[in-house]
Amino acid sequence: MARSDLIGKRVAVLDKGWVELQDLMGDDNAIVAAARTSFLGESKGPEKDKKLLFYLMRHRHTTPFEMVEFKFRVRAPVVTWWQWVRHRTFSFNAQSGRYTPFDEDDFYLVEADAWRRQSPSNKQASEGLLSPEEGARFSEALQRHYEEGYRLYRAALDAGVAREQARLFLAGFGVYYTWVAKIDAHNLMHFLKLRMAPDAQYEIRVYAQAIYEHFFKPALPWTAEAFEQFVLRGEE
Amino acid sequence: MARSDLIGKRVAVLDKGWVELQDLMGDDNAIVAAARTSFLGESKGPEKDKKLLFYLMRHRHTTPFEMVEFKFRVRAPVVTWWQWVRHRTFSFNAQSGRYTPFDEDDFYLVEADAWRRQSPSNKQASEGLLSPEEGARFSEALQRHYEEGYRLYRAALDAGVAREQARLFLAGFGVYYTWVAKIDAHNLMHFLKLRMAPDAQYEIRVYAQAIYEHFFKPALPWTAEAFEQFVLRGEE
Amino acid sequence: MARSDLIGKRVAVLDKGWVELQDLMGDDNAIVAAARTSFLGESKGPEKDKKLLFYLMRHRHTTPFEMVEFKFRVRAPVVTWWQWVRHRTFSFNAQSGRYTPFDEDDFYLVEADAWRRQSPSNKQASEGLLSPEEGARFSEALQRHYEEGYRLYRAALDAGVAREQARLFLAGFGVYYTWVAKIDAHNLMHFLKLRMAPDAQYEIRVYAQAIYEHFFKPALPWTAEAFEQFVLRGEE
Amino acid sequence: MARSDLIGKRVAVLDKGWVELQDLMGDDNAIVAAARTSFLGESKGPEKDKKLLFYLMRHRHTTPFEMVEFKFRVRAPVVTWWQWVRHRTFSFNAQSGRYTPFDEDDFYLVEADAWRRQSPSNKQASEGLLSPEEGARFSEALQRHYEEGYRLYRAALDAGVAREQARLFLAGFGVYYTWVAKIDAHNLMHFLKLRMAPDAQYEIRVYAQAIYEHFFKPALPWTAEAFEQFVLRGEE
Repeated sequence: MARSDLIGKRVAVLDKGWVELQDLMGDDNAIVAAARTSFLGESKGPEKDKKLLFYLMRHRHTTPFEMVEFKFRVRAPVVTWWQWVRHRTFSFNAQSGRYTPFDEDDFYLVEADAWRRQSPSNKQASEGLLSPEEGARFSEALQRHYEEGYRLYRAALDAGVAREQARLFLAGFGVYYTWVAKIDAHNLMHFLKLRMAPDAQYEIRVYAQAIYEHFFKPALPWTAEAFEQFVLRGEE
Repeated sequence: MARSDLIGKRVAVLDKGWVELQDLMGDDNAIVAAARTSFLGESKGPEKDKKLLFYLMRHRHTTPFEMVEFKFRVRAPVVTWWQWVRHRTFSFNAQSGRYTPFDEDDFYLVEADAWRRQSPSNKQASEGLLSPEEGARFSEALQRHYEEGYRLYRAALDAGVAREQARLFLAGFGVYYTWVAKIDAHNLMHFLKLRMAPDAQYEIRVYAQAIYEHFFKPALPWTAEAFEQFVLRGEE
Repeated sequence: MARSDLIGKRVAVLDKGWVELQDLMGDDNAIVAAARTSFLGESKGPEKDKKLLFYLMRHRHTTPFEMVEFKFRVRAPVVTWWQWVRHRTFSFNAQSGRYTPFDEDDFYLVEADAWRRQSPSNKQASEGLLSPEEGARFSEALQRHYEEGYRLYRAALDAGVAREQARLFLAGFGVYYTWVAKIDAHNLMHFLKLRMAPDAQYEIRVYAQAIYEHFFKPALPWTAEAFEQFVLRGEE
Repeated sequence: MARSDLIGKRVAVLDKGWVELQDLMGDDNAIVAAARTSFLGESKGPEKDKKLLFYLMRHRHTTPFEMVEFKFRVRAPVVTWWQWVRHRTFSFNAQSGRYTPFDEDDFYLVEADAWRRQSPSNKQASEGLLSPEEGARFSEALQRHYEEGYRLYRAALDAGVAREQARLFLAGFGVYYTWVAKIDAHNLMHFLKLRMAPDAQYEIRVYAQAIYEHFFKPALPWTAEAFEQFVLRGEE
């Protein structure tokens, strides 16, 4: 896909979120060219270029993959942000709840058929779903609880309480939050590997998958193919 | 203060939080010795050592200060964690809300006389206080809202909802959270400078101050003195 | 200057070196837009945008400046590389002396009128010049010593000695070396501040100056103006 | 081995080099304790502790291994330093050739029976040895070339040439150089994996091996065992 079709593209995720590619530097050829610096070589055509890139991925020569940069703008619930921000190789600029008040509908609602059960075997994961009937009760309770929290938040703001403190009333894990995240392709692959994995929390996995399918693969088709083969499937 | 008196010491912060020094590597002399590597020199006594350390701080020769490491264990509300985790030079291990359920009293309560007003001049800050009478209303409302959220959280857990999802019911900014944070002295000073500043949010400032007064100053008295002179007061 | 005129431009430095901008992501507006994420704001025209950028620089709000990336290709003597590589925030891909043999004329020659005297006051710096007559003797001796070392290097290679070991014969500080260096604008400013300073070694200072004048200033004119005012001149 | 026997211990490497452990923070238990932060758990005895540590290594839960710090002082030829410094996760303080003149015998001499042949199959590596007779010629030539370079270096210094420039006369790859290098256990394992590998250059491999055998294994016996099993041998 053409670079110009990727930059500015926005993909919807969850009920009110999205991820957008704001800018992109480099492509598969930039990775190959960086690797060739070690022997001061020139391209010998796409077939050999692709072969070299696969060699780099297979043998974990990671520095050439640092030469490509992605800059995303993301809107996601805080529960997602909280896990995302643990990846220290991103550059972030994020919305400030101290500066900007939240809006009434800035909350992540779980649909009736999307309440996940605690996994009995994996203490950190979910497995299977509640019945939609049971789920409907929790979706309704969550919506009401969001509304009550937001009402108290507004009352505090109206009484002059500082935004940084009034947000204690909010259901902080579910509030939508916006940030810019910039990262190189090597470190992005590390993020994708961990956050696309089956045991990653659903609320971040769908963002990682959106990035991979809609931006990473079209921007770096050779790299994506080699990543799937050597990293995701673990071939040698 | 002796190193052995510092390691293991715990200081209370906010209503239910604390910060504890788990381990410490190095002291003022280690910083001076690292700096002397550049000229393969030896110590010429404490007076010259201290002078060299002040020279390093004044001229922002930062690498020797990376040679000292602090490892803390912290319990603080998520609103504090959220700001803390933006400092990418820490190594963190943190409690997992996916793994461990939260307890009923794991919430940060604002006292009646501690509700801060929005600053009229600084959009990101607070200034002054609500009257204790008005504050009492919000403290009570916050407590009730915490309880209601916790009741819904427990109900969801009891119905089998995964912990990672049930926490949407919680007042996520106010829940107490525990983590280990390790950092070198150079990057810790950067954290302290930003988070002890008057425009830092109160809920992180008190942690930064506790670290500075109870651990940083006793562990690195020369460094602390030079930090105050050249960084905090900006002398040249 | 247009982005398309900057990318691919190469500037000569020292006797046989150069620095070339291979790619660039972002501009002054990208920095301002990233900063506005904190309050989810939109541009209010160039005048206010520039004012905001100056505010960011003055108050050391550094993260928005991480949103711009420069990718350079550099040819410089190893004495320069050695200092450059200490800046750990660059992504590098470098020529490998294990892989590629060096050429006969890959050496940095000091002109007769460019031999610098040891500074009497600053143990790390130079000050003033040797007379051109005296300098001529050293230039000639250096050239002859380079040639002799290269002759021994070639003899070792011809006898089958591994390239990685044969290079011990070379005057390793003076050999020219090529690398790709990618960095964001915030960390590039830190590099420029230290390496354009009067006490930086001449052989890296000329590269830093070339980057600043030929690439940084035209790519980020507002940022450069603010950098000079608040960082280089230290105004407040 | 007791911590107090490790700190201060120095191991000889190559003809004139060494590596010394200057300080150490943490042990296997510190890694396990950091991991337990995620579920706020306590130790249940050494057997379960060890099992948890092996689980962490096997599943690449890397952050707990960041909680242990090693600080080394190293003396090695520049050809080693040059490769070492590419690992950006170390904190370094290094000797300055601008500040301190080099000594006459600060050079790495290759013994007659230690000249390695270029590998015919791996363009970056060596394989097999020259005959000791042939090697003797190169050892002698190298010694003479070092002496001539050093003579010119001293002559330049005596004429007042700045140290930073006079070093161009030296055989820069072979000169011995001293530095302090501090790193956490996770990133040290990454260094060890790459630099103990058979295709790493001999002159850095012997340092990596010395660190592993004399310091890493005695300091972190469980971690070393798990590292060998899951990382070096690649078991799953």
